[in-house]
Amino acid sequence: MTVSLDDLPLRDDLRGLRPYGAPQAPLPVALNVNENTHPVPEKVAGDILDDIAVALREVNRYPDREFTALREAFAVYLGHDLDASNIWAGNGSNEVLQHILQAFAGPGRTVFGFAPTYSMYPLLAQGTGATWIAGTRDPDYDLTVDEAVAQIRRHDPDVILLCAPNNPTGTPLGIDVIEAVYEASRGIVIVDEAYQEFAPKDSVSALTLLEGRPRLAVSRTMSKAFAFAGARVGYLAADPAFIDALRLVRLPYHLSALTQAAAVAALRNAPIMLAMVDEIVAQRDRISATLEALGYTPHPSWSNFVLFGGVADPAATWQALFDRGVLIRDVGIPHHLRVTAGTEAETTAFLDALASVGSAS
Amino acid sequence: MTVSLDDLPLRDDLRGLRPYGAPQAPLPVALNVNENTHPVPEKVAGDILDDIAVALREVNRYPDREFTALREAFAVYLGHDLDASNIWAGNGSNEVLQHILQAFAGPGRTVFGFAPTYSMYPLLAQGTGATWIAGTRDPDYDLTVDEAVAQIRRHDPDVILLCAPNNPTGTPLGIDVIEAVYEASRGIVIVDEAYQEFAPKDSVSALTLLEGRPRLAVSRTMSKAFAFAGARVGYLAADPAFIDALRLVRLPYHLSALTQAAAVAALRNAPIMLAMVDEIVAQRDRISATLEALGYTPHPSWSNFVLFGGVADPAATWQALFDRGVLIRDVGIPHHLRVTAGTEAETTAFLDALASVGSAS
Repeated sequence: MTVSLDDLPLRDDLRGLRPYGAPQAPLPVALNVNENTHPVPEKVAGDILDDIAVALREVNRYPDREFTALREAFAVYLGHDLDASNIWAGNGSNEVLQHILQAFAGPGRTVFGFAPTYSMYPLLAQGTGATWIAGTRDPDYDLTVDEAVAQIRRHDPDVILLCAPNNPTGTPLGIDVIEAVYEASRGIVIVDEAYQEFAPKDSVSALTLLEGRPRLAVSRTMSKAFAFAGARVGYLAADPAFIDALRLVRLPYHLSALTQAAAVAALRNAPIMLAMVDEIVAQRDRISATLEALGYTPHPSWSNFVLFGGVADPAATWQALFDRGVLIRDVGIPHHLRVTAGTEAETTAFLDALASVGSAS
Repeated sequence: MTVSLDDLPLRDDLRGLRPYGAPQAPLPVALNVNENTHPVPEKVAGDILDDIAVALREVNRYPDREFTALREAFAVYLGHDLDASNIWAGNGSNEVLQHILQAFAGPGRTVFGFAPTYSMYPLLAQGTGATWIAGTRDPDYDLTVDEAVAQIRRHDPDVILLCAPNNPTGTPLGIDVIEAVYEASRGIVIVDEAYQEFAPKDSVSALTLLEGRPRLAVSRTMSKAFAFAGARVGYLAADPAFIDALRLVRLPYHLSALTQAAAVAALRNAPIMLAMVDEIVAQRDRISATLEALGYTPHPSWSNFVLFGGVADPAATWQALFDRGVLIRDVGIPHHLRVTAGTEAETTAFLDALASVGSAS
């Protein structure tokens, strides 16, 4: 007798759902999930391995529950006079965001974001029992201070998620908008800077706003700029009282000793790890320029990917690229597709494949 | 101006709570959190490091979301005709239990356990918004079929957590009790076998009950027998439909590539890793015998720790041992303390220190 999910006493709100996850396929050129396609440099990998070897000597013991060395390393990396008491981390920034929502959202509360935005936000909100509210953006996905504030006042959310730059559109978010949203709100404001390292060097991070704003948190990830998606390390900076709230909801020992060791070693090598960022930004801008020449409409991007419009039939174009060994992402926006900036060779492969499919409609 | 947690819009049900976690202190002899105090053998650590080195080459990519190689390795380790479709894993068995409760408990549902039992169960239940129901045990912490079934019928819980052997008491749980609880219930039944490897070799695992019981799950951990607490790897076996339910609530890519690599390498070396178990069991039995000679009342244990009664003032004895460099655990049961079986030298240090404190009252 075969049992199905319907035979089990699953929660009613989960019935009929499908597991979240981008379609994956072992294609030669994978530019679908905004990874850093550059491997970790060998020198750094050796350093990481040395630190993990040390951690393995005591892996029979529980790890440092407070991951103090890692929090100190993040504080040094972020600067802005932060110290370890301002830092939190988790197994990917999704877990960091989940901790925030477990502490400040949950049943009876609302979580707000300006759609289209990172597709995990509604799932994370619903996962804690909170209600997701989708705000709106200009047709080019931009947000003005007035429009943002008006929406916040209208919905009065308990938690606000600002993705800056925004995924899946790449759109930058003005620091004045973040400031105004904070002023207009009574709830928690999270600025998700997962892609911040790919923004122009003179762009202003929301880290500059932390002082005196205890409801504000700025989250980051090592998955993108640090080429560390496989290691699952997300983190955030906020007021120490905010960090105390997250201690109430984290599972004890949530960060393994191996994760802590690997991340500390990678952060010690930050300049080498981040050397890839300039190359990725150059490929991103090359993608935008070439897409425009092909007649598509690339949206301005401060991230490591480009969302482009003018695609007559996204599913057909996605499949045609797939058949040519290139995996990109259909994020569900009509007439749009999203591509990650890869190495020069991968980017060339994508652009050549797209050109061979034909110009924009 | 200093901000406190009270100034933030924390959820009401979290107000006044303290972070969970056993008191930790860097003492020479730490026997407080049921770790395996034997380091991972050097040969195995070398193997793990080799596999991690390979994983680091692609750590810029997201890990296998389905951790297929790891699930296959667990299936082989557990035997009982299980395959990868029966296996789930997480960052520690706490995360595995959290996934189950997110899928099957949550707001409006109840989670039941026979108290005293693992202190994380009520916290995990409340963390998903479910209501925790504490059942009772005999004065010696044992459970008969009739008594267990009567309590299950009375409370009719949505999820039942059976800790076998039980933490913090060490008490074995009869397979007939598990079978009867399953028959008497309509909800999910989780048998937490975190300490199963320390039970007598001829004891019967709840894995033998899985066939034909789709509401049953058997959870395990690598933290104890495998000396892998620092690596944070818990897992479970259940019907494939049960596993599908957990896919709906896990965060995508929740298990890092480094965790997957380390665990697969450790499982490949299972016979070497588990060679420590016999030595630990011998020390556990030595602790029980010596405690009895000192006039204390050790409870029968199938785990890697001993709960003992007859302690006039647990806080005073705990402190006296602490002052002698030995850290054990006051689990909050009147006149009781709990100690982990360490290496022979650590066990001797504990027994000598306790003897120097004086015999039982």
